[in-house]
Amino acid sequence: MDKTRAVRVIEIKQNVFAKNEINADKIRTQLKKEKTFMVNLMASPGAGKTSVLMRTIQTLGNEMKIGVMEADIDATVDAETIASSGTKAIQLHTGGMCHMDAEMTKQGLDEIGAADFDLLFLENVGNLVCPAEFDTGASVNVAILSVPEGDDKPLKYPLMFQVSDLVLINKIDAKVIFDFDDEAVAERIHKRNPNAEVIFLSAKTGEGFEKWCDWLWRHVTDWNSAE
Amino acid sequence: MDKTRAVRVIEIKQNVFAKNEINADKIRTQLKKEKTFMVNLMASPGAGKTSVLMRTIQTLGNEMKIGVMEADIDATVDAETIASSGTKAIQLHTGGMCHMDAEMTKQGLDEIGAADFDLLFLENVGNLVCPAEFDTGASVNVAILSVPEGDDKPLKYPLMFQVSDLVLINKIDAKVIFDFDDEAVAERIHKRNPNAEVIFLSAKTGEGFEKWCDWLWRHVTDWNSAE
Repeated sequence: MDKTRAVRVIEIKQNVFAKNEINADKIRTQLKKEKTFMVNLMASPGAGKTSVLMRTIQTLGNEMKIGVMEADIDATVDAETIASSGTKAIQLHTGGMCHMDAEMTKQGLDEIGAADFDLLFLENVGNLVCPAEFDTGASVNVAILSVPEGDDKPLKYPLMFQVSDLVLINKIDAKVIFDFDDEAVAERIHKRNPNAEVIFLSAKTGEGFEKWCDWLWRHVTDWNSAE
Repeated sequence: MDKTRAVRVIEIKQNVFAKNEINADKIRTQLKKEKTFMVNLMASPGAGKTSVLMRTIQTLGNEMKIGVMEADIDATVDAETIASSGTKAIQLHTGGMCHMDAEMTKQGLDEIGAADFDLLFLENVGNLVCPAEFDTGASVNVAILSVPEGDDKPLKYPLMFQVSDLVLINKIDAKVIFDFDDEAVAERIHKRNPNAEVIFLSAKTGEGFEKWCDWLWRHVTDWNSAE
């Protein structure tokens, strides 16, 4: 009886994934045409997604048009925080879902008007597991891991680090009270994904933001210039 | 077409939940008979589940028989850490799943030999969303929220706080560098669940552990004495 249920669930999951891939590719084609670079930003709850966005907007907001889609189970605090910076932000509620998929992302893109932006952030639901399973149609996946969470997380949440093009190690100012091994975390990330880039920063002090904003600038430029 | 898919998915989910409730109740009946109190410990990645367990074992390990079931997507680091204290620990791999359900928990209970323990911890997958949806058959649900994650988390992950009998606010020693409002977090938790207890502690310094271990002692005693 257990076997039957397992097979049934897996079948449906595969259908959902296959349909999601098609929707995600459609989104990427559209974004390419509209010259909008979209970052799918993923992390644990409280790793600092919104704080990283706030400082990124401060740094790059005068140089390119930035928009933010905040995905949460509930509440609107993050969208309100972003909007307070004068940046266009919308709040998406996932209806209890632990992740964003391409179809849900499409609703957000239509709502915010994706074509109006050079750089669009999708702040995914705070979760190191489920969001990694669903292609949202974003140009790149960026994961944030914060120092207080510990340097062992790539061992325990392998898919998140496997699918991420860049990992930001945030809250490096917290190293004064937390043990965290920079080399070990980079090695563990590269074991999951040898091509992943790793940037150490602090949304509080601004350390490392030049590197991260250069990375964004380069990727936005490449995306918009490529045919 | 979307409607059809949505209805289909929900139906299956309801079947899964209904079956899970039955399995969870069976587990609780069995644990009651065996006089084993089981705690389902849930939190974000890196909130300090394993560190809290280590200090709890140090404090109560001589007074009662404690066992630990570690659930992770991958890796065995947590079970190895616990086992290093001389406590019996087993590692459960969820096969990519973002949570533990009652059936998976039952496999763990059979493996560790639940009847041998007074107090059994199930350290759930690090995730503030999915684990809250599934009754594991535990005697109580305990959530850990750590200071670096921020005091706004009960707003954004309502179900986790709704289903938790007790919330441990961990890493209070980190308040030297992180803003965190004790009153606001307690108010937000109680908005989700007026009956939830809240204990502030630090697995690093030991502050607050007397209160938490008293809570455990009282609940283990009640569970084992009730008919």
